[in-house]
Amino acid sequence: MPVYQAPVADTLFVLNDLLRIARYDNLPGFSDASADVVEAILGEGGKFASEVFHPLNQIGDREGCKRAEDGSVATPQGFKAAYDQFREAGWGGLSADPAYGGQGLPHVLAASVNEFMSSANMAFAMYPGLTRGAIAAIQQHGSPEQKEAYLPRMIEGSWTGTMNLTEPHCGTDLGLLRTRATPQADGSYRISGQKIFISAGEHDLSDNIIHLVLARIDGAPEGTKGISLFIVPKFLPDDAGEAGGRNGVSCGAIEEKMGIHGNATCVMNYDEATGYLIGEAHKGLRAMFTMMNEARLGVGIQGLAISEIAYQNAVTYAKDRLQGRALSGPKARDKAADPLIVHPDIRRMLMTMRAVNEAGRALVLYTALKGDLSHLAEDEAARQAADDWMGLLTPVIKGVLTDKGFENAVMAQQVYGGHGYIAEWGMEQFVRDARIAQIYEGANGIQALDLVGRKLGLNGGRAIQAFFAEVGKFAEENRSDEALAPYTKGIKKGLNDLQQATMWLMQNAMAKPDHAGAASNDYMHLFGLVALGYMWGLSVKAAQEKLAAGDGDEAFLKAKLVTGKFFMERLMPETAAHLARISSGADSMMALDAEAF
Amino acid sequence: MPVYQAPVADTLFVLNDLLRIARYDNLPGFSDASADVVEAILGEGGKFASEVFHPLNQIGDREGCKRAEDGSVATPQGFKAAYDQFREAGWGGLSADPAYGGQGLPHVLAASVNEFMSSANMAFAMYPGLTRGAIAAIQQHGSPEQKEAYLPRMIEGSWTGTMNLTEPHCGTDLGLLRTRATPQADGSYRISGQKIFISAGEHDLSDNIIHLVLARIDGAPEGTKGISLFIVPKFLPDDAGEAGGRNGVSCGAIEEKMGIHGNATCVMNYDEATGYLIGEAHKGLRAMFTMMNEARLGVGIQGLAISEIAYQNAVTYAKDRLQGRALSGPKARDKAADPLIVHPDIRRMLMTMRAVNEAGRALVLYTALKGDLSHLAEDEAARQAADDWMGLLTPVIKGVLTDKGFENAVMAQQVYGGHGYIAEWGMEQFVRDARIAQIYEGANGIQALDLVGRKLGLNGGRAIQAFFAEVGKFAEENRSDEALAPYTKGIKKGLNDLQQATMWLMQNAMAKPDHAGAASNDYMHLFGLVALGYMWGLSVKAAQEKLAAGDGDEAFLKAKLVTGKFFMERLMPETAAHLARISSGADSMMALDAEAF
Repeated sequence: MPVYQAPVADTLFVLNDLLRIARYDNLPGFSDASADVVEAILGEGGKFASEVFHPLNQIGDREGCKRAEDGSVATPQGFKAAYDQFREAGWGGLSADPAYGGQGLPHVLAASVNEFMSSANMAFAMYPGLTRGAIAAIQQHGSPEQKEAYLPRMIEGSWTGTMNLTEPHCGTDLGLLRTRATPQADGSYRISGQKIFISAGEHDLSDNIIHLVLARIDGAPEGTKGISLFIVPKFLPDDAGEAGGRNGVSCGAIEEKMGIHGNATCVMNYDEATGYLIGEAHKGLRAMFTMMNEARLGVGIQGLAISEIAYQNAVTYAKDRLQGRALSGPKARDKAADPLIVHPDIRRMLMTMRAVNEAGRALVLYTALKGDLSHLAEDEAARQAADDWMGLLTPVIKGVLTDKGFENAVMAQQVYGGHGYIAEWGMEQFVRDARIAQIYEGANGIQALDLVGRKLGLNGGRAIQAFFAEVGKFAEENRSDEALAPYTKGIKKGLNDLQQATMWLMQNAMAKPDHAGAASNDYMHLFGLVALGYMWGLSVKAAQEKLAAGDGDEAFLKAKLVTGKFFMERLMPETAAHLARISSGADSMMALDAEAF
Repeated sequence: MPVYQAPVADTLFVLNDLLRIARYDNLPGFSDASADVVEAILGEGGKFASEVFHPLNQIGDREGCKRAEDGSVATPQGFKAAYDQFREAGWGGLSADPAYGGQGLPHVLAASVNEFMSSANMAFAMYPGLTRGAIAAIQQHGSPEQKEAYLPRMIEGSWTGTMNLTEPHCGTDLGLLRTRATPQADGSYRISGQKIFISAGEHDLSDNIIHLVLARIDGAPEGTKGISLFIVPKFLPDDAGEAGGRNGVSCGAIEEKMGIHGNATCVMNYDEATGYLIGEAHKGLRAMFTMMNEARLGVGIQGLAISEIAYQNAVTYAKDRLQGRALSGPKARDKAADPLIVHPDIRRMLMTMRAVNEAGRALVLYTALKGDLSHLAEDEAARQAADDWMGLLTPVIKGVLTDKGFENAVMAQQVYGGHGYIAEWGMEQFVRDARIAQIYEGANGIQALDLVGRKLGLNGGRAIQAFFAEVGKFAEENRSDEALAPYTKGIKKGLNDLQQATMWLMQNAMAKPDHAGAASNDYMHLFGLVALGYMWGLSVKAAQEKLAAGDGDEAFLKAKLVTGKFFMERLMPETAAHLARISSGADSMMALDAEAF
């Protein structure tokens, strides 16, 4: 069975030494997040993930969710009891609004705990994960009455949430959606239609399920400008606010999937279900994007999370399994063979995963902190800058960390040789689970288009210019520091490639939009490498300062310097290949007629 | 359900126009392979693959193989009847020795048919695939009596074969193996021990199963120098040569795997089973390598095969599925949305798969032809040169085409969005099936080490020098041809990077072998890109000549020019990144103590 231990020390390094969150202790939430409290929460969260979520991970995969004839869905054995523990411990409300029963801690802290839970059991962590997205949408777009009616129970965890976007004929292209909403005299709507791929659509973990559903009000404009968002509870709240009468929504089937079997992915049928408009009519996409952005960051975290647990198990196996002798001469002379970890190609895989995971964690938390600051920072300019970073980096984190997460799960599986292909070792489950993260909440190609087609040009390129300035400044300020030079050199080279690619897009994509589409995937990954490289720069600088001060775990800090160097040598060279591909344009890609395929 | 149509036209282009196999019509086997015969065999083979193998692919995945309490194994519904058809049609003996009932056709032709069968149903195609490996070992190392006893029935297909190498504690490191062989008075041996991961180890398709088993004769030297190869039939041949008494070998369990569920992957228990030494005592590894090389090329073909069928289905979906509008303006104005294929990022994925598949097919067949010539060519120098190419390219084909095959299956799945993750569409099965090809017959890290640590230096580097000379000559001879220049430029650049990487290894790996290990994976992929790029050079040149002569399907030939250009623009740039990684050496990779992980 796979092992898992939450990377608490590395998370504390990022929060305390790289982000120095103590700086913000004058802000709401942060004032409650003293170093002691943060350490205690991460320790407890990690323990909960290892001890409660993780033991159910393989069971969940094997058993899957089962739909009964009446449309009810049973989660795998043990899920309900574990969810009760999760709810009772209050993990769901960590960063939620205290006005509705949340603990009001910073999102950056909740993001860490989310990583741990997703590593331990991704399919399970999705139940509260989707609830968080629904909470965010109601918090931001709901009326005071709606907030009062739904938020306390969702934050407390006795009610869960879902997102309903996809229909059989439309996923990415929501303009095509057909689910309709008919206004009723009492101000509510009757919702009818079919939604597919609804994660946590129906299950037995909570007393009620609050569906957020995109639908078209009768007579609304066609396309995306006629879509509204509705709250459709499984049980309509009664006068006391408790789950009351059954609403006309039901699970028609559970999808048979490649992975995340512990999560019920449902076909949801809406048959004149009662729904309540949330936010403005016809502006549902805007409200949905609140959930989507929250969810996209969460999916990026899933990529990191699977990569982390896959890495931990690959390390364990590489230390345990004896096979062959080191190229440099036997290492474990007392044994029949050396452990796998002596072999360079095994090291290549372990170091690659490690270099991505540690920088990925830094990037996620750096960005989650910006999320906090976008609301809390004291001056408007700081709030705007933080919001710009969030908007720019969200597609990068979603697209790049899930692509890397999958690649790393595959790499970790490879370390196991034949045993990696066998179900009982658990490595192939990580591969199957990780795969979905590249697809849902906007397939990664859509993330790349969001970055290139939308985020780059927003507000005259303000966000990307700020990013260039920040990374460039770091490289410039530290390049004469001999100890940092090997790192700043790599960052600078990557940044140059990214700037050149951006310039190429500016000069070419306006005249021929296909050039932007043809470049988008490479551009996103080039961007990701520069962002991760920058995180390595910040990490190494923080580690060097602590080493110079004789403060902290020396082996841990020195490993940062080595791993950062590995990143610059082994991952950063890819930026030039991305630039070359981007600059080749769309011509050969688009030249063939569809019939030629 | 997925579709499949064998790429007969492309295969004919490779055989007739690129390889020009008609040149060899004076050689045995080739003399029977006239253009008509080749076309008929490919047509029939493709039809058989589509109509008989393919309809069982999803069934096999869903049902898997089942072991009964008595150790017998049932294959999925329909497999037995399909195997009977396969056997009766004589597909198993296509290139086998006519002296034992084979048709004696060139291996290059059998390799094509093997691709089709593996695309249609990889798990099924493995049953005859492993038999071919066993046939090769017996043919090359068996005594005349052994050949007589086993080959006719194996070639005919009524008996099948297996390879038994792996034990629970040893896979790559065969020196550790413990299965023992005790000599008997009659010259036979008693074989005892346990083997795992034995593909097609037990099943109901054939009347007998001939296991080729590595074991250590009592008192043999330790390590790999004390390993011998044995024939261990499930049923001992009786006096009439028919399957007689049951031997002491049985299936202890079927592994629960990520994919290839249609193939029975068995734990095999040998309990004083009767075995017959094949080849010399203690030289079993050499004999086993005959099977391994055959098998490694076959596994490379599996990578190509899955990539091809995944590509075909991605194309179908991309043409059918309507979603979004082209960046360059609506294309299907009469419909609610444009088909996916208008989107550059979808094209990027389709073109990448296509560019790899077509060059991969050319490389496989180019190499399979060398396999034929290594036996059949009239002068010794030509045989040796062909054998050198085979040895050098086998690890490249195995490692690179299976890595690319998996990546392409993942890419094809991505084209489907959420539907790609759902079992019924069949795309996720391709991903799960393709994954094993990177692991078995020597994990790809072992292929890379074989290339860098063994094949490069063999005979003073004769094979690699010949490869450099051949590719360099092509680039040089054609660089002044304006129509070919865009291609030769890419090939030349890639070749330069490969030569530099080779030089770096020569200068650094001797003093520090870890540098070779650290470089090996990148070197193998760099090599693969140059080899595939060279195939594109040859393909484009052949296509241009045919176009100039007004001979052949113009759209098909022009598509070659476009796809080759895409390869140079989008895949070849990776060679520089590989070189940069290789030149960074092993230091940061190996710097951390095992305890730091």
